[in-house]
Amino acid sequence: MGAVNVSRAARAAAPCAAIIGTGLIGQGWAIVFARMGWQVRLHDVNAAMLAEARALILQQLHALQAEGLLTDADAIIERVYVAKSLADAVKGACYIQENSPEKVEIKRALFLELDAAAEPDAVIGSSTSSIPASEFTEHLPGRHRCLVAHPVNPPYLIPVVELCPAPWTSPEALEAASKVMTAIGQKPVRLRREIEGFILNRLQGALLHEAFRLAKAGIASAEDIDTTVKDGLGLRWSFMGPFETIDLNAPGGIADYCARYGGLYQSIGAEQTECVPWDAPLVDALADERRGLLPQQDLAARRFWRDEKLMRLMRHKQQDGDNNG
Amino acid sequence: MGAVNVSRAARAAAPCAAIIGTGLIGQGWAIVFARMGWQVRLHDVNAAMLAEARALILQQLHALQAEGLLTDADAIIERVYVAKSLADAVKGACYIQENSPEKVEIKRALFLELDAAAEPDAVIGSSTSSIPASEFTEHLPGRHRCLVAHPVNPPYLIPVVELCPAPWTSPEALEAASKVMTAIGQKPVRLRREIEGFILNRLQGALLHEAFRLAKAGIASAEDIDTTVKDGLGLRWSFMGPFETIDLNAPGGIADYCARYGGLYQSIGAEQTECVPWDAPLVDALADERRGLLPQQDLAARRFWRDEKLMRLMRHKQQDGDNNG
Repeated sequence: MGAVNVSRAARAAAPCAAIIGTGLIGQGWAIVFARMGWQVRLHDVNAAMLAEARALILQQLHALQAEGLLTDADAIIERVYVAKSLADAVKGACYIQENSPEKVEIKRALFLELDAAAEPDAVIGSSTSSIPASEFTEHLPGRHRCLVAHPVNPPYLIPVVELCPAPWTSPEALEAASKVMTAIGQKPVRLRREIEGFILNRLQGALLHEAFRLAKAGIASAEDIDTTVKDGLGLRWSFMGPFETIDLNAPGGIADYCARYGGLYQSIGAEQTECVPWDAPLVDALADERRGLLPQQDLAARRFWRDEKLMRLMRHKQQDGDNNG
Repeated sequence: MGAVNVSRAARAAAPCAAIIGTGLIGQGWAIVFARMGWQVRLHDVNAAMLAEARALILQQLHALQAEGLLTDADAIIERVYVAKSLADAVKGACYIQENSPEKVEIKRALFLELDAAAEPDAVIGSSTSSIPASEFTEHLPGRHRCLVAHPVNPPYLIPVVELCPAPWTSPEALEAASKVMTAIGQKPVRLRREIEGFILNRLQGALLHEAFRLAKAGIASAEDIDTTVKDGLGLRWSFMGPFETIDLNAPGGIADYCARYGGLYQSIGAEQTECVPWDAPLVDALADERRGLLPQQDLAARRFWRDEKLMRLMRHKQQDGDNNG
């Protein structure tokens, strides 16, 4: 673990983050913090998971290095420590990221413990994708410094982080979390209040529902719907969002676009008001088509392919300069 | 125009496409065909537009060459001819792409003329984004060979082409159009029947409606919604579609994903059933935010930036190998 005096000095100088829960998401967060020079302390109640976390992180760091996304995996892993206890993990940490299973009672108990042990000015973010912070922080003395900081997996390749405050989260805590995310190279977005699914999954859900609707109506194959996105719609969306896209798609900008095409989209929208059930016949048909294109036993290899594609896309984006440049 | 004997010999050997209507979309199609070695004949009833088309195409070809997307703009433009008449344009063409204004009466008259003049086995595709082929081909003797071939602008950077048959379009014509599109390096997707907005704009509309809904509800700024897409959702969608994305996001594939997250998406979907009107207060608020981020006078420059981003993304995708590789 390299806990010699030099490392201790470095540890004192660099900001420190505690990662509580060291599954895939926790490992991803450790990489994001450590590669930007932060000290990272890992903790998990599952001793077996904690024991292997550092080796798995190092493996991912080497994969990133192989793709040219970082230069010194071995130096980065030196900043990642396995803490002896939860209290040891959060001691001195200005930011705590919680990644426990998606069960409200687990998060309630864990946040109680974290709030009690954390430094007075530490901010505590949860990686939950589906439970609003109000459901597990309401009765905490330090509930003002708790919020959701929802990443996309893997966070070291997909930078967006959704910051969703509870009604009692202080503006200062939200601001501090946003600054931490920006400091580690992530792209924080702020929700003004709690809403199910936050932003990303609501947008994804809206598009998925139409994709399911088109498949169910027999308009096109799932493969052709996928092609329409990956060789069409998704290209611009990989460097500018939907509002900027339409803002540039009419001579006079977004207002002009809405005047020109609003009628078409309203007419389409009127056909998209029914929520398509993801029932067995529809899901089975889609699964059959997907398994024809990609057999079950190839799923794991294809996930590896996806992560390699993402790594090369991130490298391209880095080389291509800032999105706003 | 270099119409010497050598060019004539080359013209005879290569397949020939007629591009009818030489505005932005027609110019884009000319580039797509010519860069893959096709002979291209341009025609437009607007003589002024036709007169400048070839120079504008050459300008775009040079821009593509500067980004490393092609190697010999000057040789490519030699394959692009300005025809003296519509009949001259379609003579010998095995594929005709129509790009007239989005008015059904214009398309009706033009398709009557095209069908009468075209070679007996030529296929005629329309670039329309909003008018189904059945509305302007019903009474044609050759209606079986007419269909919609809807590109995204610019087609030389965004490869998807939506092929949407009328009820009387023959399977052979659909297949032929699909083969032409594949031959010129585009990515054809096939609709099984007519539907408003085809696939791409229906998917875009579904996501836009949720984006408008979130903005209207004050959940987040338009800028943060855009960030959620460009630094999150849109990254994977630039190389795999929504179905493949969820297929890889659960251990057991898409069926497993639907079992795990279907409840969440159904719950979100139940809140997405109202069609948000794109009314003045909402559009004005969005336009105000966009104009704060990008003043009206900078729109043109930003469009240039977008096309450069797209060119570099396409270059990256070429270097990164096939999507399915």
